[in-house]
Amino acid sequence: MTKPVPADVLSRLKSVLGEGGWSQDPDRLAPKLLEWRDRWTGTTPLLALPKTTAEVAAVVGICAEAGVAITPQGGNTGLVGGQIPQGEILLSTERLRAIRDLDAFDDVIVAEAGVTLAAVHEAVATVGRRFPLGLASEGTATVGGVVSTNAGGTQVLRYGTTRDLVLGLEAVLPNGEVWNGLKRLRKDNTGYDLKQLLIGGEGTLGVVTAASLKLFPVLVSRATAIAAVDSPEVAIQMLARAKDTAGGAVEAFELMGRRGIEFVLKNITGQRDPLPQAHPWYVLVEIASGEPGAAEAAMERLLSKGLEDGLVRDAVVAQTDAQAKALWSIRENQSPGQKPEGATWKHDISVPVSQVARFIAEASAAMEAFVPGCRITAFGHVGDGNIHYDVIRPHGGDNAEHSAKRDQGSRMVHDIVARLGGSISAEHGLGAMKTEEARRYKSPVEVAALEAIRQSLDPKRIMNPRVFF
Amino acid sequence: MTKPVPADVLSRLKSVLGEGGWSQDPDRLAPKLLEWRDRWTGTTPLLALPKTTAEVAAVVGICAEAGVAITPQGGNTGLVGGQIPQGEILLSTERLRAIRDLDAFDDVIVAEAGVTLAAVHEAVATVGRRFPLGLASEGTATVGGVVSTNAGGTQVLRYGTTRDLVLGLEAVLPNGEVWNGLKRLRKDNTGYDLKQLLIGGEGTLGVVTAASLKLFPVLVSRATAIAAVDSPEVAIQMLARAKDTAGGAVEAFELMGRRGIEFVLKNITGQRDPLPQAHPWYVLVEIASGEPGAAEAAMERLLSKGLEDGLVRDAVVAQTDAQAKALWSIRENQSPGQKPEGATWKHDISVPVSQVARFIAEASAAMEAFVPGCRITAFGHVGDGNIHYDVIRPHGGDNAEHSAKRDQGSRMVHDIVARLGGSISAEHGLGAMKTEEARRYKSPVEVAALEAIRQSLDPKRIMNPRVFF
Repeated sequence: MTKPVPADVLSRLKSVLGEGGWSQDPDRLAPKLLEWRDRWTGTTPLLALPKTTAEVAAVVGICAEAGVAITPQGGNTGLVGGQIPQGEILLSTERLRAIRDLDAFDDVIVAEAGVTLAAVHEAVATVGRRFPLGLASEGTATVGGVVSTNAGGTQVLRYGTTRDLVLGLEAVLPNGEVWNGLKRLRKDNTGYDLKQLLIGGEGTLGVVTAASLKLFPVLVSRATAIAAVDSPEVAIQMLARAKDTAGGAVEAFELMGRRGIEFVLKNITGQRDPLPQAHPWYVLVEIASGEPGAAEAAMERLLSKGLEDGLVRDAVVAQTDAQAKALWSIRENQSPGQKPEGATWKHDISVPVSQVARFIAEASAAMEAFVPGCRITAFGHVGDGNIHYDVIRPHGGDNAEHSAKRDQGSRMVHDIVARLGGSISAEHGLGAMKTEEARRYKSPVEVAALEAIRQSLDPKRIMNPRVFF
Repeated sequence: MTKPVPADVLSRLKSVLGEGGWSQDPDRLAPKLLEWRDRWTGTTPLLALPKTTAEVAAVVGICAEAGVAITPQGGNTGLVGGQIPQGEILLSTERLRAIRDLDAFDDVIVAEAGVTLAAVHEAVATVGRRFPLGLASEGTATVGGVVSTNAGGTQVLRYGTTRDLVLGLEAVLPNGEVWNGLKRLRKDNTGYDLKQLLIGGEGTLGVVTAASLKLFPVLVSRATAIAAVDSPEVAIQMLARAKDTAGGAVEAFELMGRRGIEFVLKNITGQRDPLPQAHPWYVLVEIASGEPGAAEAAMERLLSKGLEDGLVRDAVVAQTDAQAKALWSIRENQSPGQKPEGATWKHDISVPVSQVARFIAEASAAMEAFVPGCRITAFGHVGDGNIHYDVIRPHGGDNAEHSAKRDQGSRMVHDIVARLGGSISAEHGLGAMKTEEARRYKSPVEVAALEAIRQSLDPKRIMNPRVFF
């Protein structure tokens, strides 16, 4: 817990923020102090609600001078507790809502930190463009949040993570100064690229207040399918074929196991089994092209050859947008679908693509030995080597008992990940939850360098102090 | 000039490098002390030729302890003098030549710093993959060099700069410690992304010793054309159409003016005028797709509609690989073609794509007023807003007289770039040449942050001390 904030600092903050610019009302604060999976609850002496970059700078400046800590928060959709204050000032970007510019010619949108990802999608569609970052939480997740956590999602295979989609940033640095790096350039080699530290910096090096984001053409040809395969090994073989047959046009390649699909069918209303028979593993494949008919043709080649060679057991190709949405819905409900099943250890890991099947096999053997009867779901962005690997308590088992074993179980999973050259946090970040665990797997050389960088920009460690090294 | 290196440091360096691992032979040193455009010559007390990462670490460790400065050098193809020592130890990566791994399944090559870009291209072709970074200097430019300068080239429009192509790095940090960050992950959100500081860091934060690079499928359908247009404005309109009609499949979109083409025809042997008649401006367009026939179809749509609407005056589409090479040769010879014409002020600038035509018009008006009769060539990666804007002395004019005006003239060009929201170094970097100029255009807030970052990792400023802030 952070030390108490002096009363004079609170009154100075209230004064610069003005009426409507802050709150201490427990009802107003409550939804911002609870993480949506209910794993983290927080406290704060003050919710700051700056409306402009200048107000953010004033807040950070006062805190910097007084050595008072700040936790920045966007849409509060983070999964690792990084946005939940434990006594720090809570700085919400919710009133930074302007779309400052939208230019289909330069393929750029300039949006303030509090704009939701869904609002970005709506805005760019009006000029015939697309921002290829899709998250299940996009109605709530904000620009500042996705930038600060380097969010991933389902289209990373083709477009990269948020890091690859940011052209420029505006931010308030930990000394309270505004850095205007809101360029809209594709190329700029003039010294260290400061924005790269803020992207994925989880609010530890300042508050991102606005971003220029890269837009892409809407693609006229799109094909979505679910194919059944026997194993993760075969899924990976199909991925290699998809990349070869469709060139750069594979937009998504997602893996799901039968168990995850059964949880969706059981616990989420309005879902249909994608294929007439049950199969052990499934891949959801999406191909998109600017050339009319090209995506459909590539999908046809991929699946018919896969069926012919016995790699694909059965497949369904969406014939309408509604059917494509229904296929995606099965994938997007993998996490909500398992929630009613009880206590779960969640892992957001990545390994080299070639090691995915080995990871799943080794981790599952270890987990089944450790918790006999545990129910494992493995799903996610296999095209990027990023698997959401969740271990649910045995059917009818005790939640508390399962949760008590979490740290030990997760350590076993993470050790396997590390041995295979992977990452213990592929896309969710470290937050308050995984920082200590990450220290275990990084070299002392790297930790020392990261600590030195942080110290150089935030010597009083006021920005999100419980996060990172 | 850096202070003299103590004799005991030199002998310790020789001792750890062993026979063949260092040189003080003027003939051996000469080609490494001269920049290829003859603008920079250097001196060094010792050329260090480490053969392993451990030897690089030993050299940097000795220098760190003694506070002795180092200039790292790859293929010596840099254009801004960053690789030329002025009394520092010269650390060449030329003996770090191993390709440590090549995996078509993970789409990755792991190459040591001294491997040439051409050698990377050859290696990945043997497994049916492609590394989409193309430079005119690729026979000499090295992996360490392209990473350290975040090299661009002609395929940035689709694949990004080197930054977007690096999955992991191994480097010796300024304290002499080896950082092994040679991951091959597409997603890894576990703290600040240290490699982002080394990419484009121009050797100021350590010596890159190896990199894991992202590979792509070879695309079966490729179309290359040169189209004549009336103006840069029309070129930009055609770019927007190309992006719309070909979706994400535009690989290159390059601008050339008539003057540059005439210099190529005059000064380079074996070149042909691409079209029967002369036109004021040209674009070289390349489209590539994984779908057989798709690139050719998109090119056909783009050009026939452009001709129909009067945007394109004439066009030629390559029918064979040899013809495509001939079209590219005109583009690649823009710089060599003008070399015999005398003293030149070169600028490697970027602006938002929407501002390219305005930049060319304003800069050209300013230059023609400043040096009546000067000959301007503007060419380059217009798809990224990156123009190589060169001002050659008047026909029959005096080289020395023209060179004497360089700083004043370049300042005028850079002021226009800054006013249009651009960068004074789009892809060449700052080196020794542009560091002071860059300081002029960055905010004090940013410069202070960049200085703090450098200080945090290289407190004695031993790594390439004349480069950056």
